[in-house]
Amino acid sequence: MEDYEKIRESLMQFIEQGDDKGLKEYFSTLELPLKAYLIGHLSENEKLLVFSLLSLDGKAELITELDDYSLEVIIRALDSDALSRIADTLDIDEAVDLLSEVSVQRRDEVVNKVRNAGQVRSLLEYGPETAAGKMTLKYLSLKGDEDIEKAQKRLRRVKEEEEYKYIYVLDQGGRLKGYVTPWKILISDPNTKLNQIALPIRSVTPDTDQEDVANVAIDYDLLQVPVADNFGHLLGVITIDDLFDVVEEEATEDIQHLGGLRVIETAFFPPRRSFNSRIPWLYVKLFSALIAAMVVGYFGDVIHAFIGAAIFMPVVAAMGGGAGTQTLSIIVRSIALGEVRYEDVKRLLWKEVSVGFMTGISVGVVSSLIAYLWKGNPLFGLVVGLAIIINHISAGLFGVLIPMVLEKIGVDPAHASSIFLTTITDVVGFIALLGLTKIIMT
Amino acid sequence: MEDYEKIRESLMQFIEQGDDKGLKEYFSTLELPLKAYLIGHLSENEKLLVFSLLSLDGKAELITELDDYSLEVIIRALDSDALSRIADTLDIDEAVDLLSEVSVQRRDEVVNKVRNAGQVRSLLEYGPETAAGKMTLKYLSLKGDEDIEKAQKRLRRVKEEEEYKYIYVLDQGGRLKGYVTPWKILISDPNTKLNQIALPIRSVTPDTDQEDVANVAIDYDLLQVPVADNFGHLLGVITIDDLFDVVEEEATEDIQHLGGLRVIETAFFPPRRSFNSRIPWLYVKLFSALIAAMVVGYFGDVIHAFIGAAIFMPVVAAMGGGAGTQTLSIIVRSIALGEVRYEDVKRLLWKEVSVGFMTGISVGVVSSLIAYLWKGNPLFGLVVGLAIIINHISAGLFGVLIPMVLEKIGVDPAHASSIFLTTITDVVGFIALLGLTKIIMT
Repeated sequence: MEDYEKIRESLMQFIEQGDDKGLKEYFSTLELPLKAYLIGHLSENEKLLVFSLLSLDGKAELITELDDYSLEVIIRALDSDALSRIADTLDIDEAVDLLSEVSVQRRDEVVNKVRNAGQVRSLLEYGPETAAGKMTLKYLSLKGDEDIEKAQKRLRRVKEEEEYKYIYVLDQGGRLKGYVTPWKILISDPNTKLNQIALPIRSVTPDTDQEDVANVAIDYDLLQVPVADNFGHLLGVITIDDLFDVVEEEATEDIQHLGGLRVIETAFFPPRRSFNSRIPWLYVKLFSALIAAMVVGYFGDVIHAFIGAAIFMPVVAAMGGGAGTQTLSIIVRSIALGEVRYEDVKRLLWKEVSVGFMTGISVGVVSSLIAYLWKGNPLFGLVVGLAIIINHISAGLFGVLIPMVLEKIGVDPAHASSIFLTTITDVVGFIALLGLTKIIMT
Repeated sequence: MEDYEKIRESLMQFIEQGDDKGLKEYFSTLELPLKAYLIGHLSENEKLLVFSLLSLDGKAELITELDDYSLEVIIRALDSDALSRIADTLDIDEAVDLLSEVSVQRRDEVVNKVRNAGQVRSLLEYGPETAAGKMTLKYLSLKGDEDIEKAQKRLRRVKEEEEYKYIYVLDQGGRLKGYVTPWKILISDPNTKLNQIALPIRSVTPDTDQEDVANVAIDYDLLQVPVADNFGHLLGVITIDDLFDVVEEEATEDIQHLGGLRVIETAFFPPRRSFNSRIPWLYVKLFSALIAAMVVGYFGDVIHAFIGAAIFMPVVAAMGGGAGTQTLSIIVRSIALGEVRYEDVKRLLWKEVSVGFMTGISVGVVSSLIAYLWKGNPLFGLVVGLAIIINHISAGLFGVLIPMVLEKIGVDPAHASSIFLTTITDVVGFIALLGLTKIIMT
């Protein structure tokens, strides 16, 4: 890991010297994950240069490992012939992944040139984040009444380089009945029937969300999840390496959505792209902040009469926002992991409001002492303390309610929760602080 | 998934009626992930009741799937005999995981009663989040000069129920040389030597961090990562299901740390526990908010002279905080995924400051118009716009610098970044807004 910098420098030297041959040779000595990492760190033109030097197989191998931004740059630069050739070199699930990244305007043109155009088209329709979009058609199945000896003979005739992790067992009607592992076949008595050693199956439907597929694999410790239609016919399988990517991808999405990004970014997005992806959320935030500003404006006379109120505005806002974000991050993550459901809302409300009350009292008492000592007025200390307690309770309340309701109505809670929440804690905090100042102090 | 509620209600009925026999029977019909889910939703006493009804094997099976809080409740209630019996039923990696959750005061007592006390103790020393802490000792290895036929005969003699995904190939000196899969053995010619079909190995050392082990498995599409000492001797293997848990766990940690939680919580933590886990961060936040408050206090006369400044404080703070959080969430996630390193800091700074400048101009111009129309003063519009631009640039700057520097000095960037960042954007925003108001307006 330590010599990444050196490798990068060597690569840059080849590029700067225009030594394409040396560049090609040097790049080919590197391992795949390192290749993808390096491409991710190059400028657009350099990405394209390095990629163009690769063989067709090299391109196909690398393209599945690229970060989203590098992938996009390369897809944009390739014509439909080049893209379809790469897609033909890939497994069908990878080809579908690749083609789903091609802009809608060009996609049909590319798909028409692909070898399995019909199949690819039907998989594309399910969308890339469904079981169908993630599944590969490379699987093996055998009839359950075959014995091990015959099965092994049959498998020896499979000449492909593919690693099969599971072999699916079908009944006479071709319906999925179970699976066996190569290990089980290897150690079982040659006369055993596959039915006897088959393990029960857990399958998903083609439209199952990729996150749910990953949860099935995690919960049941599976290396593959089969996709079956309503009649129990096997359509394809989703392998664990793809599910690993799903878990990482979904976590990245949650983190970035909570951080206020609509479009998932990679660190080296060009500034213009980042600008486009971030600005809509910032405008939503601006207009919600204006609501808080209106509250302050409404209490302008209070601030005028007692400047201490303005001083403690950032404190009350920060404490409410902080407490609310704590609640939010637990609830959003628990929803994503399937640990809580909408039915839990009452219990969670009770819990988080209690915690908000407790933290509110603790922080409120300290803040109220600080406010008293700072401004020399015990009544103002009381105002600050009460405002913080009220804001913490509302933070607990809305920290649960907002993501739960969004989930219930089918909106990703990671997406929009944080803006709603901070707006509410700002507004509630300012109303409490300035309103109480008005009532108690004037 | 839809009938979780019904199952929960049935379970609660058995509990309320005190029907332990019925409860035990009903619970035993459920699948393992569902059992863990249900236990997670019970109160402390109910958790203990249900757990106590299970057989030793049932306890051992369930205990590895529990959420952290349920696990803790159950461990606390069990005496050292019961704990050691459960640990003896588990694989050694699971036993180590379990024992690492036992409080330090009791751990020695329990470990001494465990069957492989010496081994467990040495694994415990590496810590639960290292390769050694996660590895299992259940693996198979064969000499590389053996042929497939002999290998298969030898493997048939392995009577255990365990599923072996990889079989490790050793040289004459017992050093790790490669691995083969059961599938490869199954389809290869019986006369082939294992050496001929072995794939090259990627191993880690016992002290490797679990996140790095997971990245090796993801990058190289491995189902297991072997742990070897410096002489190349195999010590154990880490399996993919444990690595899946690692990926989920690390993502949860990042999300919750970014959300301001020091201790990772589950949704049903009792309020008192949540309070203890959250309050230290809230105090840090309080004292950093007081810095922002001091800035406001310093400019008290400005606010007095021009109340509009107070009205736009929440707007300037929200916009700086929002822009900074966007930057932060990308950088923190990219660091966690190994996509960026400290060496990238200059490039990322350049990019994020550019984005901050662009979003600052865009939002700043709109805000300045709003401020102008609201307060009827074009100069004040200018002040608000400039303050927002300055704050966005500083958000980009510190959104990169804070997590990068924390990572460099070995502090988890997810942990502390957000407090530092919002303090800085509050302080910079208020100084800009109130300072410019003072200079330009008075």
